[in-house]
Formats: sequence, C-alpha cells, structure tokens
Amino acid sequence: MSKITILKLGGSVVTRKSETGTINTIRIQEFAAQIAPIAKSVPLIIVHGAGSCGHPEAKHYHIQEGVTKSNAKGIAITHFAVRKLNEEFVLHLRAEGVDAICMHLICTSIAKNGRLVYSGEEQIKALLALGIVPVLHGDVVMDTVRGACIISGDQIVPAMAKALSATRVGVATDVPGVLAKGRVVPVISRGNIGTINLGDSVNTDVTGGMRGKVEELLLLADAGIPSHIFHISRIMDFLQDRDHGGTIIQ
Amino acid sequence: MSKITILKLGGSVVTRKSETGTINTIRIQEFAAQIAPIAKSVPLIIVHGAGSCGHPEAKHYHIQEGVTKSNAKGIAITHFAVRKLNEEFVLHLRAEGVDAICMHLICTSIAKNGRLVYSGEEQIKALLALGIVPVLHGDVVMDTVRGACIISGDQIVPAMAKALSATRVGVATDVPGVLAKGRVVPVISRGNIGTINLGDSVNTDVTGGMRGKVEELLLLADAGIPSHIFHISRIMDFLQDRDHGGTIIQ
Repeated sequence: MSKITILKLGGSVVTRKSETGTINTIRIQEFAAQIAPIAKSVPLIIVHGAGSCGHPEAKHYHIQEGVTKSNAKGIAITHFAVRKLNEEFVLHLRAEGVDAICMHLICTSIAKNGRLVYSGEEQIKALLALGIVPVLHGDVVMDTVRGACIISGDQIVPAMAKALSATRVGVATDVPGVLAKGRVVPVISRGNIGTINLGDSVNTDVTGGMRGKVEELLLLADAGIPSHIFHISRIMDFLQDRDHGGTIIQ
Repeated sequence: MSKITILKLGGSVVTRKSETGTINTIRIQEFAAQIAPIAKSVPLIIVHGAGSCGHPEAKHYHIQEGVTKSNAKGIAITHFAVRKLNEEFVLHLRAEGVDAICMHLICTSIAKNGRLVYSGEEQIKALLALGIVPVLHGDVVMDTVRGACIISGDQIVPAMAKALSATRVGVATDVPGVLAKGRVVPVISRGNIGTINLGDSVNTDVTGGMRGKVEELLLLADAGIPSHIFHISRIMDFLQDRDHGGTIIQ
C-alpha cells in the first residue's frame, strides 16, 4: 500500500464546545468537500474528537475515574453521543463521494488502565487497501483494569500511526499550532519540550487538551514518526505537504 | 461472571424478507418488551440476522465472491443497511430500560477466507461484566484472503459461545425448529444428521438458511456446547429453560 496519512480534527473543530451535543455541521460539510479529492486518491484515516458530543456525558458519569456497575450506564450514553457525531461526519463525506465508514473504538478496541492495547489495526488496514476511508473518533473503550475508560482521538492517532507505519500525521485544531507566549512554537522535540509552557494554549478538557496532544505525539516521535499540529484552515497545506504555519513534533 | 446466554433472532424475524430494507418494527418492539426483565438480570448477548436489510446489498455487490477495488463500495453500502436495523433494535431495547449497545462486526472482527478469526470477545466480555447487553449482527467483515466477506449471525453465535463459554445458546426463527417431512426434528447430533433432509426447512439465502445454521451449531456441539432452534413465539420458554417445542443440537 502507498503511504498512509492520518488526519485528526479536534473536538472543538467539529462540535460547538460551549453547547452540549451541538455538531458543527457547516464545518464538517466544508471539510468533507475540501478533502474529498484527496480522500478518494490516497490511503487516509480520519480521526475526530468528541468535543461537546461525549465529553459532557463522560464527565457526568465519571468514566475516567473507572467504571463499575454503579456508573456503567454512562458507557452507552457517552458512546451514543459521539456516535451520532461520527455518523453525521461519515454521511457528509459519503455525500461528497468519499467511500467513508464509521469505526467505533468501543467495538474495535480494548484498553488496559487507560491505554489502548488493541485498536482493530487489521480491519483498518484492510479497509485502506480497498480505498475505503475509516473514520475513527474518541470513544469509551472497555478496559481490563478500570472497567472502561475514555480513549481520546489524541491517543488513537499515534497508536494507529505506529501500528500501520503511517508517514503523514496531522492534527487540525482551532488554534494555529502549539502556542507559547502567544506565538506558534515551530518545532517541539524531547530536546526543547522542557522549556515550553504548554499551559498557554487551550483549556484542559477530559482528554487533556494541548498538553495531552503533545505528550501523545512525542511518544510517536520517539517511534520515529513526526507529526504536525496546525489550524483547521491549513488542512490542505498539510495534505499537500506545504508549510502549514503550525508546529512539527519530531 | 454468571452463566452467559446467547440469543439469536433470524433476519426473517426482524425484517420483512420480501421487502428490501424493511425493518419489522412491531416484532422488535414486542421482543424488546418481552425480554427486558431477563436482559436486565442475566449476562445476555443478542445477535440478529440482516434479512432484507443487508442481504440484497451483499448479493448485488457480490461480496461473498470476494472483494477488490471494483466492488469495494458494496462494503459500506451493505454495512449501512444492516447498521440501521441494529441501531433501531438497540434503541427499542434501551426504550425498555435495557442497557443495550451496538456491536458491529465490521469494527470488531477480522476474517480469513470467510471464517471469523477474531470477534472482539474481550470487549464483549467486559460489557457483560458491567451488565450491558451487546447486540451483534450479521455484517460485512474484512477478510485477509478475500478482501471482505459476509459473516452471518449463524457464524457469530457459535464463535462467541465458544470464546465466552456460553451455557445457553438459542436461535429464534420463523419456523418451529428444524423441519424434516413437515415435522420438527427434536434432537440433531453428528449421529443422526446424515439421515435428515435439511432442504425441507426454509429458502436458502446468502448466509445459508437452515442448513447453514445447523452446520454452524454442530461445530458448537462438537465443542461441548448444545444449542436450541425454536419459533420466535417460544423465546421466553427458551430463556426460562422450559420446553420450547423446537430442536436441540447436541
């Protein structure tokens, strides 16, 4: 198979974060129309965050603190919230002629103490080989230690990138990149991470915000795969290998 | 975990087989209301067939003959047809207070030459342990040899029963059991299967009809787990361990 690209859209990009359960339909339609030509021609995995479709539910049921029978009903409720977003996302891509399909981590995956141990890589590889675009999302995942946990899109991206040896990994957000003192940090590595105050960038959410993203992507860089964080408006620059004005994690 | 029950409803029970894409909503509602008390109290996996929501699409795209890029678009189209049925099924169960969740084999599973090699058993076991009812269905599954294939509910049932050491396995159909010469065969085993003409029972569909069911369930009996085929109206008899007037495969 030719080189695999993984593109993640943050939850704040695809939902209205301040309004529970509100899908940013216009954004998703624009995105679908924009990337359709590329999505039809290269192996592409899309991952999206949950934003306001799932985070409020996960928080309400304290999923991240571990799940027992007392809060188990939060599993399906959280999943259904983000599932609706994922289906709408996939239907917009399909309306643009992209052969996209929903992939839910609650089905594909198993976690151990909050970390993915299996992510359905084989299914995803087989879909890519046939020109199909799997659309994954942050989700509840059953956990052999905690009962269940939340696996963010930020954790899925590097897990999938490593498992499938992806060559292009990009994270589109509502900020221009990783910010420190109001400016984009062009390159982050193990060498300079200690000098950067990640608290500047965005609010922390149940999945860790910008700090969580960078930590996950540094683990990916450790495995030899660089990645890119950039503004949603620069997706085509990323996909076409041009300067995107954001941050490279390497 | 206490004893696991697996209950399958045939595609002809949950859809109107003669009308493409027609869900038998009344049947599903009745079923959901009927089994709710038991589904809330014992570990239960529900599996349903695709019937007219998926079989016509699978046939149209020749999925069972192997999938390459030329017919790959049939994968998502077939999946979406049966996915809709599965979601409606789960929503009816949830409306009755059952904490049910959709489990799609296109996400959970991988096949080799038309046979399941992985079915997401760990996720399903973890869901059951928290009192959640996974609802599986016949689906397209990515296949390491054929590209993709159709995995019927009839194949899922024994695979899951073996993987989770289920103790009660039942298949509800629109006939009273396995029929030969117009009468129910009360017991089928390797010892008498050669003497029974399975052609009598039902029409053959893309997943093999009654012959397919019996063949799959004999493999399960080989592994020491008996199973039951009975009429949809006798589900409560099966669940409550009473005589169901159907066939026992042992």
